[in-house]
Amino acid sequence: MKKNRKPLSTLLRAPMGAVDVTRIPSDATPGYPGKTKKDALKLTAKAGRQLGPLQECLFANGKENPNAPKLLLVLQGMDTAGKGGVVSHTVGLVDPQGIKLHAFKQPTEEEKQHDFLWRISNALPGPGIIGVFDRSQYEDVLVQRVDSIVPQEVWEKRYDQINEFEAGLVEGGMTIIKCFLHISPDEQKKRLSARLEDPTKYWKFSPNDVEVRAKWPAYMDAYSAALERCNTDAAPWYVIPSDKKWYRNWAVAELLREKLAAMQLSWPSPDYNIEVEKERVKKS
Amino acid sequence: MKKNRKPLSTLLRAPMGAVDVTRIPSDATPGYPGKTKKDALKLTAKAGRQLGPLQECLFANGKENPNAPKLLLVLQGMDTAGKGGVVSHTVGLVDPQGIKLHAFKQPTEEEKQHDFLWRISNALPGPGIIGVFDRSQYEDVLVQRVDSIVPQEVWEKRYDQINEFEAGLVEGGMTIIKCFLHISPDEQKKRLSARLEDPTKYWKFSPNDVEVRAKWPAYMDAYSAALERCNTDAAPWYVIPSDKKWYRNWAVAELLREKLAAMQLSWPSPDYNIEVEKERVKKS
Repeated sequence: MKKNRKPLSTLLRAPMGAVDVTRIPSDATPGYPGKTKKDALKLTAKAGRQLGPLQECLFANGKENPNAPKLLLVLQGMDTAGKGGVVSHTVGLVDPQGIKLHAFKQPTEEEKQHDFLWRISNALPGPGIIGVFDRSQYEDVLVQRVDSIVPQEVWEKRYDQINEFEAGLVEGGMTIIKCFLHISPDEQKKRLSARLEDPTKYWKFSPNDVEVRAKWPAYMDAYSAALERCNTDAAPWYVIPSDKKWYRNWAVAELLREKLAAMQLSWPSPDYNIEVEKERVKKS
Repeated sequence: MKKNRKPLSTLLRAPMGAVDVTRIPSDATPGYPGKTKKDALKLTAKAGRQLGPLQECLFANGKENPNAPKLLLVLQGMDTAGKGGVVSHTVGLVDPQGIKLHAFKQPTEEEKQHDFLWRISNALPGPGIIGVFDRSQYEDVLVQRVDSIVPQEVWEKRYDQINEFEAGLVEGGMTIIKCFLHISPDEQKKRLSARLEDPTKYWKFSPNDVEVRAKWPAYMDAYSAALERCNTDAAPWYVIPSDKKWYRNWAVAELLREKLAAMQLSWPSPDYNIEVEKERVKKS
């Protein structure tokens, strides 16, 4: 059974052709190897144990070699979809030394004076590093489109600009994993309400969340367009059903594991003579 | 029994007055509440579970308040002492979103053109964030002193400069925890040898490590001076016996926990009306 399973990346890849994200289930659990929710903690921890050496090997390769591969995990989704949760529970499984995390906020005055990809370029991971984007270049075809922050003729061009930009990164040795954390409006309502019931969660709520929520259909259109127009083989989109937090955390961990394993990296050879060094240490 | 235990920060605080680090045991386990090495994993995980909400509360405070406290963990020690191990096993216990990690290497050309504290200032954590320095401003009174990279009249002044700098940070709301990861030369020899026996560890070894090892006494003098001259109440030094990795990881986790708990933070009050927002979400 297990051998015939399709890789998770195949199961979660955004559909080719016309995309309507509202037709993709947000509460499904494709490829989940456990039986119950209870298994998920163990399975995620197991993926973490497998991620450890894979990530360390990537890091080791990056230490001396400026051409070593790098990985970029892009997290997008509506408020409460779990971008922060994935960082905490999935990215948190690996050694912080090998992670470069960037959370993109509203553009600063300095950022606004540059092309929209300028701040993205500045936050990219170096060789051997796993970069994690909490929001990304896609904000420039999501909020900027929905709120008409720039005119349509500007954001229309951005899909191709993003594709070209990402193709260049992949050419330079980067593996890109773009995850749309997909929740239903009902699930968001539950989560927003929960934040208002718990004093340790008040800080996570902003009245603006309700205003953004009111634009749900426009956001789904914008996400559908981004997934349709930027789902290249070089930098594919994955739709992570995220109504179940435990599935979401496991799925992103497994995607990371799969992509790291596919790099088939080997531990770097020493650039010194091992026997000579053993002798030097012995005599020291 | 448990109630009468001294806080770990008291037990590990570097001695007042003249310091000779070579007289401090590197294989002791002060304050360790377990019985055996086997307990350490569980105890460290337990400290991690306690750290989680403390760190999140700090982060929550930093989200809106530019004057929120911040914490800086400084890690210093000879090669193989475990700076990376503490980052991986202890810092890795908390949410990566709340961590700002910086590993200081040999100064770059740009860094050399500035005062030695310039690059340190640039890497400091913001409000609500836990900064972690893998090496630090102390390199400027360690390797720079041992290798005479700058003349004595320059490095001699740096102890006071560092004290003033750190006092300013503390004044600005920063808690500073400086850890000297203390190992014996024999333990270092074992660890260097182990790296040469394991192909997954070759990358961690550099022939230069043996050259630095040859200067062990000069480094111990330099560490002793740093601990003696920069052990202020505002920014105290702690000596972490690090021959036992499991003790080292537990001890740093417990120090972090103790210092975060001492901040006695409370969850931030909402800057919105909870009942009004509940109603808005309900109707949305």
